[in-house]
Amino acid sequence: MRSVSVLGIGSTPYGLHADRSIEHLATEAAIEAIGDSGLDRDRIGALYLGNFVSGVLNGQEILAGLVADNLGLPNIPCTKVEGACASGGIAFRHAYLSIASGQCDVALVVGAEKMSHRSSTEVTGALNCAMDNATDGLAGLTFPGVFGMVWSAYAHRYGASRDDLSSVVLKNKSNGLNNPLAQMKKPVTAEDILRSPLICDPLRLFDCCPVSDGASALVLASSDIAATHDHHPRVDILASTQTRGSAHLSTQSDPCSFTATVEAARQAYAAACITSADLDFVELHDCFSIAEVIDSEDLGLVARGHGARWAAEGQSALSGSLPVNASGGLLAKGHPVGATGVGQIHEAVRQLRGTHPNQVPGARLGLTHNLGGTGVVCTVNVLARQT
Amino acid sequence: MRSVSVLGIGSTPYGLHADRSIEHLATEAAIEAIGDSGLDRDRIGALYLGNFVSGVLNGQEILAGLVADNLGLPNIPCTKVEGACASGGIAFRHAYLSIASGQCDVALVVGAEKMSHRSSTEVTGALNCAMDNATDGLAGLTFPGVFGMVWSAYAHRYGASRDDLSSVVLKNKSNGLNNPLAQMKKPVTAEDILRSPLICDPLRLFDCCPVSDGASALVLASSDIAATHDHHPRVDILASTQTRGSAHLSTQSDPCSFTATVEAARQAYAAACITSADLDFVELHDCFSIAEVIDSEDLGLVARGHGARWAAEGQSALSGSLPVNASGGLLAKGHPVGATGVGQIHEAVRQLRGTHPNQVPGARLGLTHNLGGTGVVCTVNVLARQT
Repeated sequence: MRSVSVLGIGSTPYGLHADRSIEHLATEAAIEAIGDSGLDRDRIGALYLGNFVSGVLNGQEILAGLVADNLGLPNIPCTKVEGACASGGIAFRHAYLSIASGQCDVALVVGAEKMSHRSSTEVTGALNCAMDNATDGLAGLTFPGVFGMVWSAYAHRYGASRDDLSSVVLKNKSNGLNNPLAQMKKPVTAEDILRSPLICDPLRLFDCCPVSDGASALVLASSDIAATHDHHPRVDILASTQTRGSAHLSTQSDPCSFTATVEAARQAYAAACITSADLDFVELHDCFSIAEVIDSEDLGLVARGHGARWAAEGQSALSGSLPVNASGGLLAKGHPVGATGVGQIHEAVRQLRGTHPNQVPGARLGLTHNLGGTGVVCTVNVLARQT
Repeated sequence: MRSVSVLGIGSTPYGLHADRSIEHLATEAAIEAIGDSGLDRDRIGALYLGNFVSGVLNGQEILAGLVADNLGLPNIPCTKVEGACASGGIAFRHAYLSIASGQCDVALVVGAEKMSHRSSTEVTGALNCAMDNATDGLAGLTFPGVFGMVWSAYAHRYGASRDDLSSVVLKNKSNGLNNPLAQMKKPVTAEDILRSPLICDPLRLFDCCPVSDGASALVLASSDIAATHDHHPRVDILASTQTRGSAHLSTQSDPCSFTATVEAARQAYAAACITSADLDFVELHDCFSIAEVIDSEDLGLVARGHGARWAAEGQSALSGSLPVNASGGLLAKGHPVGATGVGQIHEAVRQLRGTHPNQVPGARLGLTHNLGGTGVVCTVNVLARQT
């Protein structure tokens, strides 16, 4: 396996794009990424596109070939992958593998989703496609229900407070205000969180990521090729892992941990020859405030049961010991499902290039974490600025 | 890239499975394939699942992780891929690549679809997700419309008759009668075809593949591993290619040819170091009778413009010079969309093992061809019995 780098990045803002189709969003992000890479599009040897529910919400599949055609790419393999909320992370990993294994030298990754044009009932139904509907779904669960239960179990076992969880929301909403790509543009106070509607006890509205449209894209290349393009600091992929957890909440061994994350992180640290202590920043899958707490522990950023307090102490703030979701995360940047895993790497690359609006000073090593369904699939990536 | 073999095969019958969910069908096929491989399921290092519209028709995605969980597979990367009717072929190619490139030694491929429980309007809407709905779909096209136009253009240019096309239908329906996995179980006469309802001029009902449920699965392994398992004749994968064509019928250069097929075949013959003259049999994507004619020419089995006459002369019959769709093809075996590309390889392996109900005597080299959308994606595989 040879070394692979991220050479180009592009993204639409996340939010409401009533005027544009999903393929237009994807094409726009891809054009920006190709331009940013400085490479001719004829050099692209594979396209991987992550999307979750365009069939259900837009009546449009075959997005990989459609976007390639819109872009005028050569006759290359174009593949859509799906793994619920981790679809983008899976697309990235497959593009990485296509170069690492020598199938091609340059690959395009696109993640896209368009959801906001449908009713909340339709969107909730579409999101529930990520659940085992013969077990968990049949029991009446939706995703706020899942993470409400996770929070209750966590609070019961470890004693986390409403204020602890609000600190996660306040941090990410505040970070997002400074990110032009972020969907949520209004300052939020602890009082606002308490007053926001109860969605599924104890989750309130501001504990939940919004419904979003958007697309992100990346151009990956072998590090040999990247080395000859010095218009950006070079960002190398040190590890890209994909794992599986339980597909049913009802058979999950521990409601306060996702085994897919634990294993994906373990594999990624081993592949990159690092520990979590070496990281300068993390972009993780905060679909709900409690998810950030669980993810922080599963990734080994903080000891089990201490994630909520760790956030409340400001350790994961921009000025803390390990900034988490400087982008605003899913809570503030938004969660166009298939785009999210790709967008996290877009954020990480901006950090490693030193061009992020919430720049972590001297960032050299970052991790991204993308989780799908009720923890059925996880991808973790470690990226490094080449010195 | 190292050599990869097909070690195990499994399939549900194709047809109507009102009593079983898509994940049950997929799991059933996978259990059979794993059993047939003789390998312990703990040795499986990756799962690729091909599916097209389970989100739309079943409200169920994350099928790759769900099926892996049902099977009790270890914590491995599980990925769903989608490329309309070529979803199964794409899944196969990615499992092949995961072994060829050394990421794992054994991989499971599953293709699955469940459609028959929904109304024809719902199924037609779902199938149209494979079309560019901003152009072709907006013009009112459905897939029978697409292939009706293809037939008209072909007949105008090359003079093919209704009888020529009926010979394709009669051959495949007849082959299917002897295949226990096939959906269509009644003999069909030329008169029956003429009397069947007009679907989209000149296509009649029997020119169209049926709506089907079903799943097929394969266990692939490095040829080193396969060599130590001699309970079946070994079947090696000589080539597995994936290409892209136009995503819009309206921008296709020639209505009588799919460029994705032409290029996928060219690459596959080159990789396998063969020509079409070396093939003993072909399983190709006959979603409509006219598609078999076009595919035969695009794959280089017969000269351009001679495909319809070639079939009428019986050259592609079981007793002909190059048997095509001995399985019954999509027209008679059925077309559970995501399963089809995997099922074609299931058929090819049975031919190469010498155990097919419509055995081609002495078959040593076969080709499978899977086409998606209006020709936007194609996979071609060349498989050989190891002597």
